[in-house]
Amino acid sequence: MFGPGYELTARSSLSQPGQYACEETVNLIGPKGRVENLRVLGPLRSQTQVEVSRTEEFKLGIKAPIRPSGDLEGSPGITLEGPKGTCDIPYGVICALRHIHMSPEDALSFDLKDRDVVMVRVKGRRTLIFGDVLVRLSPDFLTSMHVDTDEANAASIITGMEGYIAGVEDRM
Amino acid sequence: MFGPGYELTARSSLSQPGQYACEETVNLIGPKGRVENLRVLGPLRSQTQVEVSRTEEFKLGIKAPIRPSGDLEGSPGITLEGPKGTCDIPYGVICALRHIHMSPEDALSFDLKDRDVVMVRVKGRRTLIFGDVLVRLSPDFLTSMHVDTDEANAASIITGMEGYIAGVEDRM
Repeated sequence: MFGPGYELTARSSLSQPGQYACEETVNLIGPKGRVENLRVLGPLRSQTQVEVSRTEEFKLGIKAPIRPSGDLEGSPGITLEGPKGTCDIPYGVICALRHIHMSPEDALSFDLKDRDVVMVRVKGRRTLIFGDVLVRLSPDFLTSMHVDTDEANAASIITGMEGYIAGVEDRM
Repeated sequence: MFGPGYELTARSSLSQPGQYACEETVNLIGPKGRVENLRVLGPLRSQTQVEVSRTEEFKLGIKAPIRPSGDLEGSPGITLEGPKGTCDIPYGVICALRHIHMSPEDALSFDLKDRDVVMVRVKGRRTLIFGDVLVRLSPDFLTSMHVDTDEANAASIITGMEGYIAGVEDRM
């Protein structure tokens, strides 16, 4: 998609240490339509993962399962388009399950364990309590919650807004 | 936009009695991009109102206030495009405030009044509790909740799904 021997260019750091957004973007081509300028994230992983919102699923004409990152089995494929060509992936398109990356220190203070499912309240002009929020623990994590654009928009979330863990729904 | 003397064609009834979706659609042209095939709703009203989601606002490059229907003062304008021409409206673009149309009978049984603000729980794969939900009463209303596509997607709502009023937040 970018030409032989091409190397990605890091553009800005993400909230998780070592993760970054690249200068490069790709387009998605689905049976019903296109989604343009999806940011490529690095570093490279063992398998290609494409995260779309429900809004983008309707536009593309595909149905992606709601999954945690890396859980790609049985997910649909898509055509990716770069500046130098296209690439069909046989699977890898998911709608990301909302989740909290959490440091073990914060988990201790919140009395939470890895894979707990919590509710999170976001207060603003469009107050929302998110259920089914998966907590993942790692010493590499900086505590932050990840939602997709539909979820952020439904709560009018802007970068840096704070949420409040409102209760534990399930302990796995 | 549709040519002189044109009359809209009703296509399907909406949940509110007397309201209908038309065969006709228009496109929106904003400073940053376009949104295609917006359904026209009838019957004609005294002022033109365009309801967009936050996702569409980013695409168009405009910022619309979150408002109840009909409250258009100070809202931005946009260019509308029909099959026979375009039309610039000076104001009228809003992001619809989520709300429940409610019959007076149902309001009595739920112990709610017009303009109460409630929380609504939607249970599913993406459980969500919506805060800031405005209740509007009218003998003409059939009880139903209206959310935009971002809000529906954030909760994976499908047509006909049920919500549960989880509490009254505010009485105006």
